Amino acid sequence: MIDLNDYTLEEWNSLLKLASDIRLNQRAYINRCEGRIMATLFYEPSTRTQMSFQAAMLRLGGQIIGFDNPVNSSVSKGETLMDTIRIVSGYSDVIVMRHPLEGSVKAASLYSRCPIVNAGDGGHLHPTQTLTDIFTLYNIKQRLGGMNIGVCGDLKYGRTVHSLIKAMTRFPGNRFYLISTPELAVPDYIKQIITSSGADCIEASSIESCIGDLDVLYMTRIQRERFATPEAYEKQKGVFVLDREKLKKAKSDLAILHPLPRVDEIEFAVDSDSRALYFKQAEFGMFARMALILKIIEDDLLEKKDDDSMPGGVHCMNARCITQQETYLPQLAHIDASGRKCCLYCDEELPPKPGIRV
Amino acid sequence: MIDLNDYTLEEWNSLLKLASDIRLNQRAYINRCEGRIMATLFYEPSTRTQMSFQAAMLRLGGQIIGFDNPVNSSVSKGETLMDTIRIVSGYSDVIVMRHPLEGSVKAASLYSRCPIVNAGDGGHLHPTQTLTDIFTLYNIKQRLGGMNIGVCGDLKYGRTVHSLIKAMTRFPGNRFYLISTPELAVPDYIKQIITSSGADCIEASSIESCIGDLDVLYMTRIQRERFATPEAYEKQKGVFVLDREKLKKAKSDLAILHPLPRVDEIEFAVDSDSRALYFKQAEFGMFARMALILKIIEDDLLEKKDDDSMPGGVHCMNARCITQQETYLPQLAHIDASGRKCCLYCDEELPPKPGIRV
Amino acid sequence: MIDLNDYTLEEWNSLLKLASDIRLNQRAYINRCEGRIMATLFYEPSTRTQMSFQAAMLRLGGQIIGFDNPVNSSVSKGETLMDTIRIVSGYSDVIVMRHPLEGSVKAASLYSRCPIVNAGDGGHLHPTQTLTDIFTLYNIKQRLGGMNIGVCGDLKYGRTVHSLIKAMTRFPGNRFYLISTPELAVPDYIKQIITSSGADCIEASSIESCIGDLDVLYMTRIQRERFATPEAYEKQKGVFVLDREKLKKAKSDLAILHPLPRVDEIEFAVDSDSRALYFKQAEFGMFARMALILKIIEDDLLEKKDDDSMPGGVHCMNARCITQQETYLPQLAHIDASGRKCCLYCDEELPPKPGIRV
Repeated sequence: MIDLNDYTLEEWNSLLKLASDIRLNQRAYINRCEGRIMATLFYEPSTRTQMSFQAAMLRLGGQIIGFDNPVNSSVSKGETLMDTIRIVSGYSDVIVMRHPLEGSVKAASLYSRCPIVNAGDGGHLHPTQTLTDIFTLYNIKQRLGGMNIGVCGDLKYGRTVHSLIKAMTRFPGNRFYLISTPELAVPDYIKQIITSSGADCIEASSIESCIGDLDVLYMTRIQRERFATPEAYEKQKGVFVLDREKLKKAKSDLAILHPLPRVDEIEFAVDSDSRALYFKQAEFGMFARMALILKIIEDDLLEKKDDDSMPGGVHCMNARCITQQETYLPQLAHIDASGRKCCLYCDEELPPKPGIRV
Repeated sequence: MIDLNDYTLEEWNSLLKLASDIRLNQRAYINRCEGRIMATLFYEPSTRTQMSFQAAMLRLGGQIIGFDNPVNSSVSKGETLMDTIRIVSGYSDVIVMRHPLEGSVKAASLYSRCPIVNAGDGGHLHPTQTLTDIFTLYNIKQRLGGMNIGVCGDLKYGRTVHSLIKAMTRFPGNRFYLISTPELAVPDYIKQIITSSGADCIEASSIESCIGDLDVLYMTRIQRERFATPEAYEKQKGVFVLDREKLKKAKSDLAILHPLPRVDEIEFAVDSDSRALYFKQAEFGMFARMALILKIIEDDLLEKKDDDSMPGGVHCMNARCITQQETYLPQLAHIDASGRKCCLYCDEELPPKPGIRV
Repeated sequence: MIDLNDYTLEEWNSLLKLASDIRLNQRAYINRCEGRIMATLFYEPSTRTQMSFQAAMLRLGGQIIGFDNPVNSSVSKGETLMDTIRIVSGYSDVIVMRHPLEGSVKAASLYSRCPIVNAGDGGHLHPTQTLTDIFTLYNIKQRLGGMNIGVCGDLKYGRTVHSLIKAMTRFPGNRFYLISTPELAVPDYIKQIITSSGADCIEASSIESCIGDLDVLYMTRIQRERFATPEAYEKQKGVFVLDREKLKKAKSDLAILHPLPRVDEIEFAVDSDSRALYFKQAEFGMFARMALILKIIEDDLLEKKDDDSMPGGVHCMNARCITQQETYLPQLAHIDASGRKCCLYCDEELPPKPGIRV
């Protein structure tokens, strides 16, 4: 499971239904993964994600091995990712991997003898966060289409936001409100995904200006450093902070989500509002991960092979791509939806001819 | 479970009986917590305590998630304790928490959706150590009253000693021998607890002077730095070290306890004496924790709410209080046994009017 | 289980048969260690070994406590190994210990109330790696004697190589090819073990010169620093690297093994050769460890006591011996196969009279 978008809507539906059933009938699932082992290989610490996966596997009766920080471990000392994965996949039934480099989980999947789940590969993908978001909406709203969805914060670099938008464009009738500064607006390719799906896309410069229209408000943080100038920060910071005052204009069934951790973009006073669902969302995430693990282990929901993978012929030029570190990886490519030839690992466009790495 | 003294003697008895039964019939309990998850959130490392809790939960058939050192984890990076607890309590059935700041576990309990156990909050409380101590005596001595109890070492700062004294004053007929230097004598409020309970209290300046009277000798360390001068240390150090020579004067059924780790306050040669029970005590601790976890999970032995909590009106001035770090915490107070208005979190007396934090 | 050579061939056979059965009938063993706890005490990180042991115990239905790096833990802060072992052995049914000092696990076994398994004590022993190697050959070759066994790399300091040679000399008809530089040749005492067992021993200066004769090729790394000069390194490095070219001369059923991690002593292109069994070997290691754990827990396959241990009378002079750090350890000795009086812990020869520690 590298990318949620590799799956069909039927497969999503099946996952969401299973997650719902697990949530309502937990005791029926406590032995389903008995005797099975999940390896959690966290090449950068992410305690929250790791605990969510661990709780999910343990609640299915499975067990956990792994590490939470390779600095403290002997893994990655002079051993290739390829070798580590080959060894660990001999010990385990499923691997959950997080890594700071883009495309790393895809690369690992080439060598793994067991299914592998992407728990975040740098700024590239974090599909189980998106699965969490979708499952939360599916439960709260009883539908995934026909909604006005606001996304607020750093929309330029926000991996979870991009992923959520991509996912929600697969359902009819959604309208997207993109709430951000001009500097931190969504990349053009995301806007193209929205418009080519037929969905409406509205850019907004404040929460206040559109909150009354929203069914969903997905909050993320804008880091101070991301504003154009300190003056711009001082002037605008409040505009992207959700507080009780702004909530007065919102619908009574607005769903406020956040991938967490929250810093100061949602005032603490909002937490007691019944529309604040971000902690509930974290709990939904555990059930969504339980469903995913169970599907993978019981139904052989294997990673989708890129049948369209082809020789790349050139080095990927993305400095954050796993191919920069693991130089033995074969140069592979695929053609993306807009016809560009992209690195199979990190999905960045490949240069037309061999370039000089920077 | 923030403070052992929140419970009635009947509740203690019930816990101790259960712990005894678990110890004698371990195999009967190996599935009692099947499908349940304990989160061990250790904001400072304490491998021994953490392993004891983990072994306890695992021997009940439950499972563990958590972290052992937030420096290696992504928790506590810009996230409030409040948010972490809200998220983790959605994953788990019980939280065991250790934290360097006083009152931190009480603070966490305000936001937790599952029961929470105090595994040490700074120099404030460490109730499962006291439960361990009591359970050891209950098993070894078959009684908890009518004993001459010596406590030796740093009685001024020794959290475990204070807690043990408080606990043992609840049983009739105990006499306390306080063995220390004048500089490291027990605080006055502890002496008041002893005397107001009707128990005798004898101050001693050496182990030798009273060991013959004792039924229990609870050893702790005096750090070299805690003596008034290097000369005082050199002159006195041997006086607070237990060795075979001093043991010659002791009763044949003296119980020697120690919260561990031991440094040099008990000579290694004492270990083989049948009265040396400190390693046995560590094992008893595991059974005591098993009983506590089981009671919490099966019988909803929930944390006692402070029905007497009231607005504090002022900042707590204790520099080691959790309210200094987690500034969103409501200012809350309670009235202690001697009528003082104290911080609800750390139990330090509040200033009469708003003060300046130092 | 301190040293594999403490066991009889019958005991080895029984272990190997059990491991084979576990491998073929995994589901039959998933509850065999239910309610049991293994403590993994890793005083130096070794993620691969630790994960192998953890996977083994978990696949038997048992559970794990422990630490992976004492720097992050509170263990070893002022506490003796003796005390830590006494406490932890009260929590667990079996201890698996790795430590940077030689003889440390033997020392720990003197104080443990439960069986203890050596997962590597410095450069001294690593018996479960050898068990892994033997079990792999037993499965692949269906025999343990009558083979031409090449060992390549740093044969002077290579703990796993020494151990493998010792083990394989117990079976008739094996011939050893020692492939290394003169500076990194096997120590004389290992050669004596080979010759006194009646086995042939052939020294070779390259893989190429003997690969055609081999049934087994056990590769290890030679570190660049271990060559006599940088020139020697540049000249010779390729000679001890296995590549597809050299493999052309090898038998079709050659078994290529490696204790892993591999650095560059086996070219990646070899991995796809069916004779490359080193990743399979890691998986066999898990089954071998499962058998060992099960034998220890179910059949009381306890550590063999040195009935021949005797007072040492002198300090061990080995700077890497555990007695240098844990100074309370009794001075003990045993007489080795060649009649030398050796330290009971690290097996180094003791000085004839008290020496000065360096």
